[in-house]
Amino acid sequence: MSISGTGRIDLNADLGEGFGIWRLGEDEALLDVVTSANVACGFHAGDPSTMRRVCAGAAQVGVTVGAQVAYRDLAGFGRRFVDVEPGELTDEVLYQIAALDGIARTTGGRVAYVKPHGALYNATVEHEAQARAVVEAVVAYDRALPVLGLPGSALLRAAEAAGLRPVPEGFADRGYTAEGSLVRRGESGALVQDAEAVAERAVRMALEGVVVAVDGTALRVPVESVCVHGDTPGAAGLARAVRAALEAAGATVGPFSG
Amino acid sequence: MSISGTGRIDLNADLGEGFGIWRLGEDEALLDVVTSANVACGFHAGDPSTMRRVCAGAAQVGVTVGAQVAYRDLAGFGRRFVDVEPGELTDEVLYQIAALDGIARTTGGRVAYVKPHGALYNATVEHEAQARAVVEAVVAYDRALPVLGLPGSALLRAAEAAGLRPVPEGFADRGYTAEGSLVRRGESGALVQDAEAVAERAVRMALEGVVVAVDGTALRVPVESVCVHGDTPGAAGLARAVRAALEAAGATVGPFSG
Amino acid sequence: MSISGTGRIDLNADLGEGFGIWRLGEDEALLDVVTSANVACGFHAGDPSTMRRVCAGAAQVGVTVGAQVAYRDLAGFGRRFVDVEPGELTDEVLYQIAALDGIARTTGGRVAYVKPHGALYNATVEHEAQARAVVEAVVAYDRALPVLGLPGSALLRAAEAAGLRPVPEGFADRGYTAEGSLVRRGESGALVQDAEAVAERAVRMALEGVVVAVDGTALRVPVESVCVHGDTPGAAGLARAVRAALEAAGATVGPFSG
Amino acid sequence: MSISGTGRIDLNADLGEGFGIWRLGEDEALLDVVTSANVACGFHAGDPSTMRRVCAGAAQVGVTVGAQVAYRDLAGFGRRFVDVEPGELTDEVLYQIAALDGIARTTGGRVAYVKPHGALYNATVEHEAQARAVVEAVVAYDRALPVLGLPGSALLRAAEAAGLRPVPEGFADRGYTAEGSLVRRGESGALVQDAEAVAERAVRMALEGVVVAVDGTALRVPVESVCVHGDTPGAAGLARAVRAALEAAGATVGPFSG
Repeated sequence: MSISGTGRIDLNADLGEGFGIWRLGEDEALLDVVTSANVACGFHAGDPSTMRRVCAGAAQVGVTVGAQVAYRDLAGFGRRFVDVEPGELTDEVLYQIAALDGIARTTGGRVAYVKPHGALYNATVEHEAQARAVVEAVVAYDRALPVLGLPGSALLRAAEAAGLRPVPEGFADRGYTAEGSLVRRGESGALVQDAEAVAERAVRMALEGVVVAVDGTALRVPVESVCVHGDTPGAAGLARAVRAALEAAGATVGPFSG
Repeated sequence: MSISGTGRIDLNADLGEGFGIWRLGEDEALLDVVTSANVACGFHAGDPSTMRRVCAGAAQVGVTVGAQVAYRDLAGFGRRFVDVEPGELTDEVLYQIAALDGIARTTGGRVAYVKPHGALYNATVEHEAQARAVVEAVVAYDRALPVLGLPGSALLRAAEAAGLRPVPEGFADRGYTAEGSLVRRGESGALVQDAEAVAERAVRMALEGVVVAVDGTALRVPVESVCVHGDTPGAAGLARAVRAALEAAGATVGPFSG
Repeated sequence: MSISGTGRIDLNADLGEGFGIWRLGEDEALLDVVTSANVACGFHAGDPSTMRRVCAGAAQVGVTVGAQVAYRDLAGFGRRFVDVEPGELTDEVLYQIAALDGIARTTGGRVAYVKPHGALYNATVEHEAQARAVVEAVVAYDRALPVLGLPGSALLRAAEAAGLRPVPEGFADRGYTAEGSLVRRGESGALVQDAEAVAERAVRMALEGVVVAVDGTALRVPVESVCVHGDTPGAAGLARAVRAALEAAGATVGPFSG
Repeated sequence: MSISGTGRIDLNADLGEGFGIWRLGEDEALLDVVTSANVACGFHAGDPSTMRRVCAGAAQVGVTVGAQVAYRDLAGFGRRFVDVEPGELTDEVLYQIAALDGIARTTGGRVAYVKPHGALYNATVEHEAQARAVVEAVVAYDRALPVLGLPGSALLRAAEAAGLRPVPEGFADRGYTAEGSLVRRGESGALVQDAEAVAERAVRMALEGVVVAVDGTALRVPVESVCVHGDTPGAAGLARAVRAALEAAGATVGPFSG
């Protein structure tokens, strides 16, 4: 599962997270930097016209499109855990993948992977039933689609068990606990905000497969992709700094699903 | 466009029009009678689990699945005209077709045609821009998909102009004006409620391509499909009566898209 | 808190739980039986016209109206736990109470109490932060409004601590554990379905403040109201049987908030 | 209905038009400039927490709160005409007024007037049935609430006929036709963008009750309020310029509903 040493790394970010009149993030600027775009599918954000515009933009510059599937929660931006029954969750995830894939295909692209968003991402780190529910949607739709997630998560284990390709990712701008999970937002050390520090962490993740936890422990994080956040002010600038540092250090930045 | 005289006729009905806990219509009973199921896609009705269950049922009994696309209007069941900008409407219709098609494919089926629902159906009889918007979604998704609609409607004209196959349908349980449009709900003669009369009208539509308008005029209605309503009490019984009458009269009841 | 021995008991049920075209339950029949109507406020069910119709019906027959507040979850009918941040939950509950109260006042009634619905009801049995969040909405809106809930729940404790009147209720058609909580749906003994048994349990709750748990233990349940379910087939018939049994046993059936 | 010559004028703007994570406009800056805030009520924008925050801010600085009622259309920001049946529209408007009023009262304020938003505003200029539907909601909720709208609109006529106070408003940054209606967005002359011109128009509206139409005609517009838009970049700056010009010209800027 590890690719450390190969020097090849994907850069992913969340895109298309507006809804109707509301905009969020810097979709166009990010499309020039990332190699994989996690496109919102309408359940936490992402109206059909935004989805199509982002997919068209991604196709134009050769960025891979992934389905950023979420709980049905526009009011909470998908950031609240919802205790959905697994069978329903599978169907809701399937609906989202299919909708985005159909739209992407009209722009010359297609959905090339699946990544849960927000609270669904966090839940499926440990919630076995919801993790399997997401995986079952992917299996039902297209077994060739990789699943992007946290190394060691229930999601990636379920993906692997189902014969899907699990793709582990790291977060250069988030603090890690000594156990390898992310420090919760709101706790001390949750965010790394210095651009240089973020870039250095990305480089070490990509080239050595290592990240330093908040307590100083050097953790092995065998990642194939680094996630840069798209919804913070200056997100595109930070993403550019990360990419520049990766390339300067000799990494090949390119989509994992190539 | 006319198939009168061939003796072949499709029977279509709206299915999967519940949402979450709420149910509507007699999906299972109708699947045993109709040859084409217009499946709701989540915008006016139809949660993902209902969509999947109905598609699975349709696949099992060999009923063709169509995307019953609608305005985004759960509160109004898609029965209220919404003045959506055509570009957005195209994307919303595309989203719905893609979502249902992806779900149908997991059940061994696929979306085989597109039919607008409710107020979108009524609007696209005359509203050229919205009619074209619907057609553009079909063109973008799959030019092989026929469009089901009212003979002479802007929708079918736009479909034909775009190189899609227009499929004209008739309503055996609705009154027609002398001009060939449906008598509005709420006006006298809007509904034909006697089961025998409905069956007779279906037979005449299918075999002769004729329906008698409220003023007694015999209208030519070159239909390839007859729509039976699914959301009225006793809908399945009425559909069975229509089918039995068609078969007794020598018509071959089967999907138009075969 | 106990009223056992007074022989006065309220009967409450969930009403107005349709949405748009979809109907659920037997609102009109239940209005002739219950003394308190928990009216859905639009977040899990209940469009404005349904809310107004039910409030008008309740006002006409002298049934008390309560705000049946819920998570924002039409797709899941409010039956899925949502990990809403307490501050937002307070505001969402406040919105619902206010909307229903304003509508009720146009019919000559008003909101006279608050009862959480579904997963919010279940969560606030133990989830202290969400329980307080609901109570804070009531405090902000009107301190005179009682809160209906399970005896011993975090919700009723928070209500009491905030100076609100907590109103404990019992479920005659649900099994109880020896600890006084409800047997989860899906587990053995969760539902009592025999109408006579339900009626007997209601009488014993109302007159003696006792219910027999699934293991035979006689539990003290000092209830001021008995909840009869409104969304099951035959709900109104069961409610009538419960009311008849209560009256035959000498109980006075009337609203708690009188 | 005219107040020209009194030198007293209200300044209103749309506030609270975010939803969940999404923000729009400059609520806080506008609260320092306007005298009336049209607060979104959740149907086209405005989650409960945003509603409460804006109402609290308005109460703190003494800005009057109005219910900015809209079609149920988050995806379209209420800018698309929806052909809602009048009875339902009344109930939906009533729901919104009540929800906002209940929230405003927890902040020490209250809803003091009603103004339709977007497509509902435009529709009720001429659509008699929808205009009456909006007015009926106000009548049912509180006959003391004024209705803000375009001079000569069906809405203000219906308000007056129902015994409500109609409050005519003008748009300093919109072009007028010679007939006194607004030039449609997208057409030439629809927007006045020069800050000085906007301020001058506001002054002439307020002090003389006159606006110059796109063809040069001087129109009488007897307005009690001037609307400044809140959702454009620089909106607060423009509003400040308008207010400064009004005060410099000797007008008294204050709420109409005082």
